[in-house]
Amino acid sequence: MDSRYDIAIVGSGPAGLSAAVNARVRNKNIILFGNAEFSEKLIKAPKIKNYLGLPDITGLQLKDKFENHIKSMNINITLERINEIYAMGEYFGLMVNQKMYEAKAIVLATGIEYTKPLRGEEELLGKGVGYCATCDAPLYKGKVVTIIGYNKEAEREANYVNELVKKVYYIPMYRDKPNLDDNIEIVEDKVLEIYGKERVEKVILENKQIDTDGVFVLKDSISPAQLVPGIAMESNHVKVDANMNTNIPGCFAAGDCVGRPYQYMKAVGQGQTAALNAVSYLDKQ
Amino acid sequence: MDSRYDIAIVGSGPAGLSAAVNARVRNKNIILFGNAEFSEKLIKAPKIKNYLGLPDITGLQLKDKFENHIKSMNINITLERINEIYAMGEYFGLMVNQKMYEAKAIVLATGIEYTKPLRGEEELLGKGVGYCATCDAPLYKGKVVTIIGYNKEAEREANYVNELVKKVYYIPMYRDKPNLDDNIEIVEDKVLEIYGKERVEKVILENKQIDTDGVFVLKDSISPAQLVPGIAMESNHVKVDANMNTNIPGCFAAGDCVGRPYQYMKAVGQGQTAALNAVSYLDKQ
Ligand SMILES: Cc1cc2nc3c(=O)[nH]c(=O)nc-3n(C[C@H](O)[C@H](O)[C@H](O)COP(=O)(O)OP(=O)(O)OC[C@H]3O[C@@H](n4cnc5c(N)ncnc54)[C@H](O)[C@@H]3O)c2cc1C
Ligand SMILES: Cc1cc2nc3c(=O)[nH]c(=O)nc-3n(C[C@H](O)[C@H](O)[C@H](O)COP(=O)(O)OP(=O)(O)OC[C@H]3O[C@@H](n4cnc5c(N)ncnc54)[C@H](O)[C@@H]3O)c2cc1C
Repeated sequence: MDSRYDIAIVGSGPAGLSAAVNARVRNKNIILFGNAEFSEKLIKAPKIKNYLGLPDITGLQLKDKFENHIKSMNINITLERINEIYAMGEYFGLMVNQKMYEAKAIVLATGIEYTKPLRGEEELLGKGVGYCATCDAPLYKGKVVTIIGYNKEAEREANYVNELVKKVYYIPMYRDKPNLDDNIEIVEDKVLEIYGKERVEKVILENKQIDTDGVFVLKDSISPAQLVPGIAMESNHVKVDANMNTNIPGCFAAGDCVGRPYQYMKAVGQGQTAALNAVSYLDKQ
Repeated sequence: MDSRYDIAIVGSGPAGLSAAVNARVRNKNIILFGNAEFSEKLIKAPKIKNYLGLPDITGLQLKDKFENHIKSMNINITLERINEIYAMGEYFGLMVNQKMYEAKAIVLATGIEYTKPLRGEEELLGKGVGYCATCDAPLYKGKVVTIIGYNKEAEREANYVNELVKKVYYIPMYRDKPNLDDNIEIVEDKVLEIYGKERVEKVILENKQIDTDGVFVLKDSISPAQLVPGIAMESNHVKVDANMNTNIPGCFAAGDCVGRPYQYMKAVGQGQTAALNAVSYLDKQ
């Protein structure tokens, strides 16, 4: 087989898997980079209500469905983490440390990196800690939820969660005065740790502790610009047009890395659009 | 229940269903307009390979999965065909013949008509050619009307028109035998042109001509430009930004009606994005 692939897909979350499936349907020679678990954000989702056709599925179950799908099409995930991608004119060089892969077109589906995790955050992810308040709030009916908001947008989600749960604490990680529904309790204190043995039990702050059933950590994304030197960004996201073209010809992007909403189906749909446009791009060469 | 809905979704294909599911997850009071079969383009697909998570599924099977999903969330499809949508400033009025539904935001998910207009159709639109038989039938009391029906649903409209006018000709554009009132004359022939100087005069077929005062062309979907007066289009598609905003505040669009690729997952992802942005729009009001 030619060592230069038609399309290299970077990222094995919903966006990357969808890109791979669609490129394979179109008979392209592809390589898909990612990890065996596909995506942390997939396997840790406790209950997904909005993946059309598969109601009330857990992240792990959805991962199995995805795995089944790509296996049925003989698509493998190459378990490598791409460090840097260079546009060489006619092709792209994808670096894994000293090793280089080559491809004529690229689909970036890397998701978004969150800011540095809080103590306990990663350990308790999926065990009471979540990143999508609006997705998971229904799990906390009649319970106490703490929202750690890194930006003003988190306030809207807090107000929404407040409609569904018994009690909401809101810890702003920014300076502005939060604008929240009256019965949300604002806690202006420094978070030291999210604590729990099996599941979240409390949030430990500098001056007090809050007993809570769930914690939503609502953060910003950091820039993926380091991966692809010269790629155009727009407020922390890869800038794309409606066809998922980036500013670099032959380089497409999809999923969380191109913008909100951070959701599976949106990522899957964009992965499809990116792959089909990458196919058109190749066909025009 | 308040008679003004939060979000009205027009179209029951993958885009509309996804919008409904996501708006419901966000606790909005929605109404979803469409038909019992969801979408012709869904139920007629022989084998679908690119719906991530459900490999090698038929259109009918996928329709069952979708039905199961919306039923599990108590979402019903209101079996009405919206003829026209007016932006009233604070809300939208959705017309079904003489009846009006009200909603604060809209998601257009009407799909796209693949069929090319007939010769004369666009030229004589509003001059005897119409797309809403039940709206305009009263104009043809005592006159002759020809209905060009692209699907079985058009038969219901033909029967209704038949109660009001002198004579109805029905030209089926599909294979099935039409099921119509006795005195409707079925014309099984190929349409070449809708002809008229100032107004419609006749329909020219391969083997004969029909003198007629009006022609209703009843397709799977009418053009969004007609459905929503004032909506901005871009080469046959509704113009949207990355958040699925149209040029009309509070009016969102998703799926085939906003552009290529014409694919399920792309439609589903955009339906989700449209619904979540409609929710944000409402929350900001
Ligand atoms: C706990 C939780 C619950 C959620 N619940 C829902 C829900 O109910 N409904 C919903 O719609 N959404 C939900 N989400 C959001 C959803 O998970 C994301 O929107 C979705 O996973 C984004 O898909 P993606 O493919 O863009 O990126 P990701 O899923 O983040 O996948 C990107 C993948 O690419 C890999 N990668 C990144 N860089 C490289 C590189 N350089 N080389 C190789 N691999 C790389 C990453 O390791 C990762 O595996 C939830 C998220 C979380 C965390
Ligand atoms: C035979 C066939 C096979 C296909 N195979 C595949 C495939 O394998 N994979 C793939 O990804 N895609 C496939 N497609 C394409 C796919 O069907 C479309 O892209 C998809 O259905 C678009 O979804 P949508 O929700 O935008 O519109 P549609 O599915 O067209 O749904 C729109 C719905 O809205 C209704 N509607 C319109 N106007 C109104 C109104 N004014 N009031 C009320 N209701 C209204 C319509 O009646 C229709 O039911 C196929 C299409 C066909 C025809």
